[in-house]
Amino acid sequence: METIFTEKHRLRDAKSELFGGQLVQPHERPSRAEYVIKRVREANLGLVSDPDDFGLDPILAIHKPDFVEFLQTAWERWQEAGFQGEAMPTTWVGRRMSDKRPSFIEGQVGYYALAGETSISGGTWEAAYASAQVALTGADRINNGARSVFSLCRPPGHHATADMFGGYCFLNNAAISAQHYLDTGGKRVAILDVDFHHGNGTQDIFYNRDDVLFVSLHGDPLETFPYHLGHADETGGGAGAGFNVNYPMPPNTPFEVWRSALAKGLDRIADYAPDVLIVSLGVDTFENDPISFFKLKSDDFTTMGADIARAGLSTQFIMEGGYDVEEIGVNAVNVLQGFIAEQGD
Amino acid sequence: METIFTEKHRLRDAKSELFGGQLVQPHERPSRAEYVIKRVREANLGLVSDPDDFGLDPILAIHKPDFVEFLQTAWERWQEAGFQGEAMPTTWVGRRMSDKRPSFIEGQVGYYALAGETSISGGTWEAAYASAQVALTGADRINNGARSVFSLCRPPGHHATADMFGGYCFLNNAAISAQHYLDTGGKRVAILDVDFHHGNGTQDIFYNRDDVLFVSLHGDPLETFPYHLGHADETGGGAGAGFNVNYPMPPNTPFEVWRSALAKGLDRIADYAPDVLIVSLGVDTFENDPISFFKLKSDDFTTMGADIARAGLSTQFIMEGGYDVEEIGVNAVNVLQGFIAEQGD
Ligand SMILES: [Zn+2]
Ligand SMILES: [Zn+2]
Repeated sequence: METIFTEKHRLRDAKSELFGGQLVQPHERPSRAEYVIKRVREANLGLVSDPDDFGLDPILAIHKPDFVEFLQTAWERWQEAGFQGEAMPTTWVGRRMSDKRPSFIEGQVGYYALAGETSISGGTWEAAYASAQVALTGADRINNGARSVFSLCRPPGHHATADMFGGYCFLNNAAISAQHYLDTGGKRVAILDVDFHHGNGTQDIFYNRDDVLFVSLHGDPLETFPYHLGHADETGGGAGAGFNVNYPMPPNTPFEVWRSALAKGLDRIADYAPDVLIVSLGVDTFENDPISFFKLKSDDFTTMGADIARAGLSTQFIMEGGYDVEEIGVNAVNVLQGFIAEQGD
Repeated sequence: METIFTEKHRLRDAKSELFGGQLVQPHERPSRAEYVIKRVREANLGLVSDPDDFGLDPILAIHKPDFVEFLQTAWERWQEAGFQGEAMPTTWVGRRMSDKRPSFIEGQVGYYALAGETSISGGTWEAAYASAQVALTGADRINNGARSVFSLCRPPGHHATADMFGGYCFLNNAAISAQHYLDTGGKRVAILDVDFHHGNGTQDIFYNRDDVLFVSLHGDPLETFPYHLGHADETGGGAGAGFNVNYPMPPNTPFEVWRSALAKGLDRIADYAPDVLIVSLGVDTFENDPISFFKLKSDDFTTMGADIARAGLSTQFIMEGGYDVEEIGVNAVNVLQGFIAEQGD
């Protein structure tokens, strides 16, 4: 399986995350991608290629122009306003508030933020843009006949909506890739989100559409981030009714329980008969992940990959979360090796 | 003019405020009230009295029971969860999100937060409760015939909604006092909010009601906190249509401009003919306030007090914001002295 990867991910190197009332080193840090690419190479997974540049258009097919312009300029404008730290929201469009967009950068950071742990710092836009290109290049490989590909994206994407950043995400790589398939001849795309956290951004983007099926397995949002989306009764709206499938699960969920939800999700995907399957591959379901509460062991990730392979679909893996830096490479590559062992490269 | 005050305000003594991407000493700090009470005494404004205790019922007449219980227990539950800093939100019910209430304390802090700068720390509930009693005791003095009274509340209240804290506010002292007038025989209450920031909480609480007229003069929310409420086109809903009046003003607004908006607001209040006037008295309109952008000078606050006095109404002043600690006492007491000079004590 070919891996698409760029060192430009290192441009995303924020110094501060708000966690537990303190500013700490971000859990989403450059070493994450380094652990994964190192393991890809150790395991001889296959070619490692730089991304091509598909430009802004496929990003703007998902994200609102004003949001993209905000991401491009926020750090400079924040510094010009004289703030001393990284750009972090202190306000937002909360319950019963107005969705008029503020003019001042401090208010705009809040307007465009869906959560408050994630700061915008120098290089964030450049890394997010490069990460989207890693996703698009993977889609291009599938379009050109590859059975599978691994887009080693960083920063991750599945929390980002059309017009909001947060949860370490800025551009929704999986959504951008899904739209690219549809814009290059595809009719139906399924996104299977196995990250520990609900893919609220992906859900929000496609909620009213039937050309993208979204299936997410995740920690119950009553108990964990993103807290305010991802319930089982969110099943899609309008033309998208029935095309959004959430499997929230409680603390300490073991692999056997998780795997039975995966089986249900894969059944739903088989019914949908998509042209292509995108897997939002987070490995923060691991038992030792520092910010999560599922109990998957390293070998379980191999089984997960094999289960996904048996769907028999052209499959693009897109890297999302996973924060136990020592193990993230092993677990991510276990999924890919499990997939290959079942389906072939 | 009698002042109601309690040293219990000191129990609100948070260590951290998120500002400009850094955790800084909160702008809303105990010394604020100390400067004001010192000036009240220097100026021989009148009696300084401790509040009576009106209990929880008048608080629950404004705030939702689950929110009050959250405020009472949040700090203990946050510590039990093992978080190391003060309780600060990192998520919230943002645009297009679900308003289901999370179970875990971290998610609940976000659910009940309208902004992210304000932490909950030990003593916060006790101080907020005492501050509400300071407001209620002032209302009781008016009910017993006083022409005017000064409720030296701290923490402030006008940003707090029925179920959200933020902007340094936890319980909406002005709203609690207004409801108390209505529940003790009053028919109509006017609230004039002269704090630099829009009183989003007070607006939200009474937005659909015609028994409380809310008039607010403030920095344009496109340019400053609370950013996401306080526009001129927010005029009330349902039975409250026409009973919410906002005067947003741009950076560097001088007193002459501000005063003409005050005149319009006082005209609207005169038309309404309320039984009592509550003034949400913030003095962060001062030219040297560290987090604001109006240009009022200390003498202008005396003029403001005289203008308000000419409305000829029984008037309760309730302390809100003002963050230039060296001058906050002078400016607040200037308003009260200007009022007394015009209307008598
Ligand atoms: Zn995750
Ligand atoms: Zn203020």
